[in-house]
Amino acid sequence: MPKAVAGPEIERLIQLLARLPGLGPRSARRAALHLIKKREQLMTPLADALEIARQKIVVCSSCGNIDTQNPCTVCTDPRRDLSVIVVVADVADLWALERAGALNARYHVLGGTLSPLDGVGPQDLTIDALVSRAHGEDVKEVILALNATVDGQTTAHYITDLLQDAGVRVTRLAHGVPVGGELDYLDEGTLSAAIRQRTPI
Amino acid sequence: MPKAVAGPEIERLIQLLARLPGLGPRSARRAALHLIKKREQLMTPLADALEIARQKIVVCSSCGNIDTQNPCTVCTDPRRDLSVIVVVADVADLWALERAGALNARYHVLGGTLSPLDGVGPQDLTIDALVSRAHGEDVKEVILALNATVDGQTTAHYITDLLQDAGVRVTRLAHGVPVGGELDYLDEGTLSAAIRQRTPI
Repeated sequence: MPKAVAGPEIERLIQLLARLPGLGPRSARRAALHLIKKREQLMTPLADALEIARQKIVVCSSCGNIDTQNPCTVCTDPRRDLSVIVVVADVADLWALERAGALNARYHVLGGTLSPLDGVGPQDLTIDALVSRAHGEDVKEVILALNATVDGQTTAHYITDLLQDAGVRVTRLAHGVPVGGELDYLDEGTLSAAIRQRTPI
Repeated sequence: MPKAVAGPEIERLIQLLARLPGLGPRSARRAALHLIKKREQLMTPLADALEIARQKIVVCSSCGNIDTQNPCTVCTDPRRDLSVIVVVADVADLWALERAGALNARYHVLGGTLSPLDGVGPQDLTIDALVSRAHGEDVKEVILALNATVDGQTTAHYITDLLQDAGVRVTRLAHGVPVGGELDYLDEGTLSAAIRQRTPI
């Protein structure tokens, strides 16, 4: 425990900031000082934004997205293609796909991936809700947009098995060379996948 | 401007978090999601801590430190050696020295360093207040704990000149090899200084 150099209120602020991902004890101290210096421009608006977020943010009961309305903006968007459900592990993945703008479908947030080692089983994820949504009459395709890790792919296989009777097409994201990526730095698995799934120019 | 994927309240929270030093747009998004997921354990306490800090934090009118009382905890500490003033550029430097615990003196925060290129002149810093404090009858030494950069050393020379008639000893931090540092990675200036100021074992 480093020596407390400021009052307990400031130390508490530093300790809370240090619990944010991406900030360690040292950068939390810098962030706290920055907040204190920019009291009107940053500290006050941030305190207000946190208060508003605390009151307003809800989890979408349909897809698991985080928003200030339920059902969420994506689920209530009339321009979305209702025949496709994109399955993601986490809200962060949903946001990443939305930023990419390559999809115009609705989502389903699992809340994680199956991980026997960490004690995460099917009952800890929203897999039942997904299966029931996939049986909806509009749904024609379920895209499994899960991480290309062991846990992600295990989860994808598990869901694929469960959806066999749902009468939907189950797909997953393509493997390959990242855009802008250099072959020299890629692992063998990615290169093999990129060769196997090569496409005509 | 990336596409907004969440409600305006969440986007606003992300934008404010991105203005903290050490957090970029991507890590601010991760931090916001983390806050939302840990609503009770983290978001609520952080909102409260910011609100308390906003109300309570003041700048010490004597030394320029940041605290919840004025004069600050350091200035009112009866065990401090009143004969020494440690001059720092910024509150962060004061905190760093306090963490090191090598000093039992009071401080003087300049609020920056002289930087003609950035338009920072003597009138932008608390140099006048320092000179007046240094003329106090108790004060025997002023330690210039400023960065070993061009601006820091310029500021140190400027202050040294001003304090010539104050009847105090003016010192600066030693240059040398950082503890745990490897000679091979040090610049020539540091090595030369460490040789010149070598000490008997």
